[in-house]
Amino acid sequence: MTTTRDSVKRVAQQARDEQRRRGAPGAAELPADAIGTRRTIIIERVQPELDGGRHAVKRIVGDVLHVSADIFADGHGLLDAVVLLRADDEEAWRQAPMRLVDNDRWAGEIRLERNRWHRYTIEAWRDEWGTWRDGLLKKVDAGVAVPTELAEGRLMLEAAAARTPGADARRIGQALEAIERARSEKQAVAAVSGGELLAAMRRNPDRAAATRYRELDLVVDREAARCGAWYELFPRSQGRTPGEATTLKQATWRLADIAKMGFSVVYLPPIHPIGLTNRKGRNNTLNATADDVGSPYGIGSEAGGHDAVAPELGGLEEFDHFRRAVEEQGMELAIDFAIQASPDHPWVAAHPQWFRRAPDGSIKYAENPPKRYQDIYPVDFYDDDAQARAALWDELRRIVLVWVERGVKIFRVDNPHTKPIPFWAWLIREVQRDHPEVIFLSEAFTRPKVMRALAKAGFTQSYTYFTWREQRDELREYFTELTSSEMREYFRGNLFTNTPDINPHHLDAGRPAFVLRSVLAATLSSLFGIYSGWELCENARLEDREEYLHSEKYEIRVRDWDAPGNIKPLLTDLNRLRREHRALQLYDNLRFQDVTAGRTLFYRKALPGELDPRTGEPAAWREAVYVAINVDPSVPERAILHPNLPEIGIGWDEPYRMTDLLTGKARSERGADVAVDLDPNGTPFLIFSLAPL
Amino acid sequence: MTTTRDSVKRVAQQARDEQRRRGAPGAAELPADAIGTRRTIIIERVQPELDGGRHAVKRIVGDVLHVSADIFADGHGLLDAVVLLRADDEEAWRQAPMRLVDNDRWAGEIRLERNRWHRYTIEAWRDEWGTWRDGLLKKVDAGVAVPTELAEGRLMLEAAAARTPGADARRIGQALEAIERARSEKQAVAAVSGGELLAAMRRNPDRAAATRYRELDLVVDREAARCGAWYELFPRSQGRTPGEATTLKQATWRLADIAKMGFSVVYLPPIHPIGLTNRKGRNNTLNATADDVGSPYGIGSEAGGHDAVAPELGGLEEFDHFRRAVEEQGMELAIDFAIQASPDHPWVAAHPQWFRRAPDGSIKYAENPPKRYQDIYPVDFYDDDAQARAALWDELRRIVLVWVERGVKIFRVDNPHTKPIPFWAWLIREVQRDHPEVIFLSEAFTRPKVMRALAKAGFTQSYTYFTWREQRDELREYFTELTSSEMREYFRGNLFTNTPDINPHHLDAGRPAFVLRSVLAATLSSLFGIYSGWELCENARLEDREEYLHSEKYEIRVRDWDAPGNIKPLLTDLNRLRREHRALQLYDNLRFQDVTAGRTLFYRKALPGELDPRTGEPAAWREAVYVAINVDPSVPERAILHPNLPEIGIGWDEPYRMTDLLTGKARSERGADVAVDLDPNGTPFLIFSLAPL
Repeated sequence: MTTTRDSVKRVAQQARDEQRRRGAPGAAELPADAIGTRRTIIIERVQPELDGGRHAVKRIVGDVLHVSADIFADGHGLLDAVVLLRADDEEAWRQAPMRLVDNDRWAGEIRLERNRWHRYTIEAWRDEWGTWRDGLLKKVDAGVAVPTELAEGRLMLEAAAARTPGADARRIGQALEAIERARSEKQAVAAVSGGELLAAMRRNPDRAAATRYRELDLVVDREAARCGAWYELFPRSQGRTPGEATTLKQATWRLADIAKMGFSVVYLPPIHPIGLTNRKGRNNTLNATADDVGSPYGIGSEAGGHDAVAPELGGLEEFDHFRRAVEEQGMELAIDFAIQASPDHPWVAAHPQWFRRAPDGSIKYAENPPKRYQDIYPVDFYDDDAQARAALWDELRRIVLVWVERGVKIFRVDNPHTKPIPFWAWLIREVQRDHPEVIFLSEAFTRPKVMRALAKAGFTQSYTYFTWREQRDELREYFTELTSSEMREYFRGNLFTNTPDINPHHLDAGRPAFVLRSVLAATLSSLFGIYSGWELCENARLEDREEYLHSEKYEIRVRDWDAPGNIKPLLTDLNRLRREHRALQLYDNLRFQDVTAGRTLFYRKALPGELDPRTGEPAAWREAVYVAINVDPSVPERAILHPNLPEIGIGWDEPYRMTDLLTGKARSERGADVAVDLDPNGTPFLIFSLAPL
Repeated sequence: MTTTRDSVKRVAQQARDEQRRRGAPGAAELPADAIGTRRTIIIERVQPELDGGRHAVKRIVGDVLHVSADIFADGHGLLDAVVLLRADDEEAWRQAPMRLVDNDRWAGEIRLERNRWHRYTIEAWRDEWGTWRDGLLKKVDAGVAVPTELAEGRLMLEAAAARTPGADARRIGQALEAIERARSEKQAVAAVSGGELLAAMRRNPDRAAATRYRELDLVVDREAARCGAWYELFPRSQGRTPGEATTLKQATWRLADIAKMGFSVVYLPPIHPIGLTNRKGRNNTLNATADDVGSPYGIGSEAGGHDAVAPELGGLEEFDHFRRAVEEQGMELAIDFAIQASPDHPWVAAHPQWFRRAPDGSIKYAENPPKRYQDIYPVDFYDDDAQARAALWDELRRIVLVWVERGVKIFRVDNPHTKPIPFWAWLIREVQRDHPEVIFLSEAFTRPKVMRALAKAGFTQSYTYFTWREQRDELREYFTELTSSEMREYFRGNLFTNTPDINPHHLDAGRPAFVLRSVLAATLSSLFGIYSGWELCENARLEDREEYLHSEKYEIRVRDWDAPGNIKPLLTDLNRLRREHRALQLYDNLRFQDVTAGRTLFYRKALPGELDPRTGEPAAWREAVYVAINVDPSVPERAILHPNLPEIGIGWDEPYRMTDLLTGKARSERGADVAVDLDPNGTPFLIFSLAPL
C-alpha cells in the first residue's frame, strides 16, 4: 500500500513540478481545473528566454541579469512584479523589484552571485493599495466625499499589518492610529496617502493570488568561461632533440614561457594510451613503422582507455605533476574529450554493443565515404538495446568525473556534433550539478544551426567560423551575429587562429597574416586560442590542403621556440592589454564603428554604462578600447576612422587625447575623422583609447 | 485498491499527456530518465508558433497550413519529417510530407478540412535507407567494393518488407529478389539503388525512434470568421413614428434593405430586460423620467437577466422570429454579450458574491474615478471564495450556450478587457469544443498588448484602432502591423466605421468622409461593419465629444432610411465587389504599393500564387484588386500610382488594361506610373484591376 501511495505522490509531484516549470497557463493549455482562477495576470515576451524556455541562458558570476517582460491584466488597476532567482541547490527564491518601463513593458535586474545553475522567473500581482490610493486621490481632487474609500483603506491597512514584519509594520500601524485620530476627512486622507506608507504597503503585498511565469534556466559560470587565452600543445613534442619524445614532466619547462606570453589555459590533445592496430604513420599515412608514435586521437590500448594516461607521457603521476605545474604558473589545464576508440580500447571487448557491426560481425571503422579511418572505431549511440545505450552514457559521465576529481575543470570536446545533442545536454547538466565550475568547449565545425544547438545544449564555449572569415565585411557581419544577436545569450565563441587540423590558407601570406590574425582573435572576442607553432609563424602545408605538413598528430616535432621572426612579443602585448582592460574581458560588448576605407575593420570594446530602460541596451559606454586593423596582409591602407564620440562622453567638436595602448604614445585629435596608416609590413593595426582633454 | 490504481494511472496519464504537449525535451528540461535516448533529432523554430506554443494560431476551413522548422541531428545522415494534424475529436493523426528547403530548414503543407480546434506537430526520423544509399553510391563511384554495404541493404529491405503494406511491399520484395538473382556486384547495386525503391522505402520508414515536437494548437474557423460585413442596429428604433418603439418582429421590415446593401451579419446590442433602478435618461443624464426607455447595457430586471429578452422587444418568441427572418435574407444574427448587471438583475439577489461590496455592505457601482455609472454593477471575478468564482464562470458559460442552442452563432463581446483574460480563454475553448462554429468578436478598445492578448486567448475577431487612424502613413503602418506581422496568425481586425459609442471627429467633414471611410473599411480588411445611421451620414455630436447626440442607447430614434445624400448605393457597390472578388475576402493578403502623392493610400489585395519555399511567402499573386484612395476629405489630389506589375505577371514595359471595377470602364496603360485624380467632392478613390493586353 505504501508503495502505491508513494507512487501516486511521486507522479503527482512530477506533475506539479512540471506545472511550476510551465508557469501560469496560456490560452490553449488552460487546465480544466482553472475555472474561477484569480491568477489572471498575463506575463509574456520574457527576455531573456530561449526557444520558449527550453534552453538555459548563460551569464557569469558578478553579472547583473536583466529581465524584462510584457505584464498586464484585465482592468485598469496597477500591478507590481518581481524577478525571482534561485540556485539549483537552494529552496528559497531571492527577489528583485521590477518597474513599469513603457507600454506594459516591465524590467528588473538581479545580481548573480554564485557559480551554479539557476532558475529565474517573474511573479506579478495587483497593487491593490496603489490602485485604491489613486482612486482616492482622484475623487478627493474632484471634490467627491470618500467615506467608503477610507473605510476600505482601513481594512486594507489592517490586513497588511497582520502580514507585515518590522519597520513597515510600525509604519502601517501609525497610519491606522492616524486615521483613528483624524478629526476630518482631509486629515484622514492625509494619514493614508503618504509616499512612505505607499512604499511600505508595496513592500508587503498580498501575493496569495499572484501570477508566476514558468521557470527559466540560467547557467552562471565562472569568469574563465567568458575570458581566456588558450595555448594548445602536444606534450610529447616539447623536446630539444629531434625525434625524441617528451613526457609530461619533461614538457613542464615550456610552461614558464607560455605563462610569460600571458596565456591562461594550457590545452592538451588526448593524453591517453594510443592504439597499435592500424596505427597511422607520418602525414596520415596508412602503414606505420615500429617507431611511429601514432595519433593521440586513436584512443585506447592494453595500457587503458579514456581514464588512463599514456605510459610514454609518464602515466597519471606525471599528469598530476604537469597539472600542478600549470597551476603554479597561474594558468589552468584543459584536456581533450574525444569519444572514439582505437581497436585496442578496453571498451571494444567489454562493451561490443557500443560499436556498430557489419552484417559479418566485424566492427565498422569510422568513415566519411569513400574515406576510411581504420585506426578509429566511432562509438555508436544508437544500439537497439536501451540498457546498452544508458550504460554508455553512464560510462562517459564517469570518464569526465574521473578527470574532474583529478583536478581538470576544462574540457575541450572533440567533434561533439557527431554525438547526440541531447546526450551533451544531459552530460553537461549532470557534471555541472556537483561541479558547476567545469567548462566545456565545443569543437564543432559544422552547419550553423548544429553549432548553435550544441551551445544551447549547454556547451560553455564554442569554436567558430573565425578561421574562415577573412574579408572586412564578412568579419563585421559574423561578429555582429555572434555578439549582438540572440546568440550572445548562449554562445561564447572561442577564436582559435589555428588548430592541429586547420592551417588556414591565408597564412601563406606569412608573418603579416599571423600578426593581423593574432590581433583579431585577441580583441574581437574575450576568448581566443593558438595552437603552438603559431608564435613561430609556422605555415608549411601538406600538399594544397588546409593541413600542416609533418603534423604533430602523427610524429614528434622539435622547435626552436625563440626562432627569429617570432611574434611572441606581440602575443605578450596583446595578452597584457587583455589583462589591463576589463573591456577586452567581456564578450557581448563588441561594437563596430564607421570607417572610410576598403580593408580596414574598426571596432571597440567598452564597459556598459547606464542602460536605456526601454531597450535594456547600454545608453553610454566607458573605458573603451578601439581597434583599427587592415585585414589585408598584402596592401597598406590609409583609413579614416569615425569613432562614435558622444557615446563615450566626448562631444563631436571637443578635443580629445588618442593614446596608442601598445606604445603609450598619445596625440591630440578633434572630431570624428581620424586618419591612420595601416601597413602590413609595418604596423597593420592600432589599438587605442580616447579621453577628453 | 482499484481507486488507488486508477488514481496512479490517471496522474501518470496526465504526466504523459503533458509530455506529449511539450514534445521532445530541450537541453535544460531533459528528464532524468532520458539517459540513453534515441530520440535525438532537434526540431526548433517552428512556424507558426505563438509564445512558445502557449496560444492557438487561427486558420479557416479550406486553408492550407504551412509549417516550417529547423530540423537536424548529430552526424551527417539524411533525415525525413512530416507535419501531423488532428482535430480535437479525432484519435488518429493525418500527415503530410515535409521537405528540406535550405540550411536545415524544412517545410510542409497540410489542408484544413474541418471547422474544429486542432493540434499539429512535426515528427522527424533518420532516413536510414537514403543515407545508406548515398554512401553506397559514393563508394561505387570511388571504385570501392561494397559487399558489406549490400549485406546491410538486404537486412534493411527485409526489415522494411515486414512492416510495409500494399504496393510498396511488392516493390521491396522485388528488390530483394533482384539481389538474390544478381550475378555481379554491379547488378546488385542496380537492384537496390533505383528511385522508385527509394521512394517506397521512404514512404515506409521505421519511426520507432522518431522525435516528435510538442503539440501546438490551431483553431480552424468557418469562413464567416474571416469575412463578413456587419450591420449594427437597435431593434427598438426601427419604427416610422417618432417616439414609438418597435418590437423585434416589427423591426424585421428593415432586413430586406440591409440584405440588399450586401451585409452578411446583423448585430444587435443587448436585447435583455433593462433595469429600472438608476435608469439613465436621454443623452446619458442621471434622472430618467417614466417614459425613458433606458440603456440596453443596464441588463436585468424582474423580467429576467442575460438569458431573457426584454418584454418590450417581444420576448424570446419574437427573438426567434427575428433570427429566422435574418437568416431568410441570407444573413446571420450576432448578439451582444455584456457581462454586467443592473441593480435589478436576478443575479444580484441570487449571487451576492459576484458583486463587490463596500465596507458598509452596499454593492459598488461601476466607476472610473471620479465618474460613476449608477445604473450598472460590474461583475466581480475576484471574490475570495473560489467556489463563487467557479459558479460565476459556469453561469456565464451557461448563458452563452443558451443562446447557441437558440441558434445564435456570433457573439460580440462588450468590454472583454475588463474581465480576466484566462476566463475568455476558458470560455471560448469550452463553447467551441461542442460548437466550433461559434464566433466571438472582442470589443476591446484598450492598450495594444491587451488587445493582442484577448485575440491570443481565442477571440475570433477583434475591434481595432481603425477609427482613429486617419492619415495616410499611419493607416499604412497600422495595417502592415495587423496583416503582415505575427498578429496575422491570431488577430482578425473587424473595421467598424462607427459604433453607438464612437462618432469619430473626422466625420465632421461630412459626406466625403463617410465615403472614404466606407471604402477603407470595406477594402483594407475582409471584416468590416457600420452602425446604422452611417449610410445616412449622421454625425450630430454630443457637445465636443466623440459621442452621438440623442444616442440610441438612451432613447428611441426614427430615421428616413432613404434620406437624400445617403451612401447606400456606395455600400451596395462595395459589398458587391467584396462578394465578386475572392481577394477581398482574405485577410492577410493586403500589400501596400508605392505611390507618388501626399495623401493617397495605394494598396492591393490578391490571391497568393506559388509560394517561395524559403520564406513561405507568396512569390506571385493573381486576381488582384487595387485601391487608390485620397484619405483627406477636403483636398483633391493627383497621384502617380506605381503598381508592382511583375508580381502579377505583367512586365514593366508591357501594355495592360486597367479596369475600374465600380463602373466597368477600362483604359490601356503601360509602365508603373499611372496618374489618377482623386477628388473628395467627386470620386476620391479608384478600385481597379489590371490585366495583360
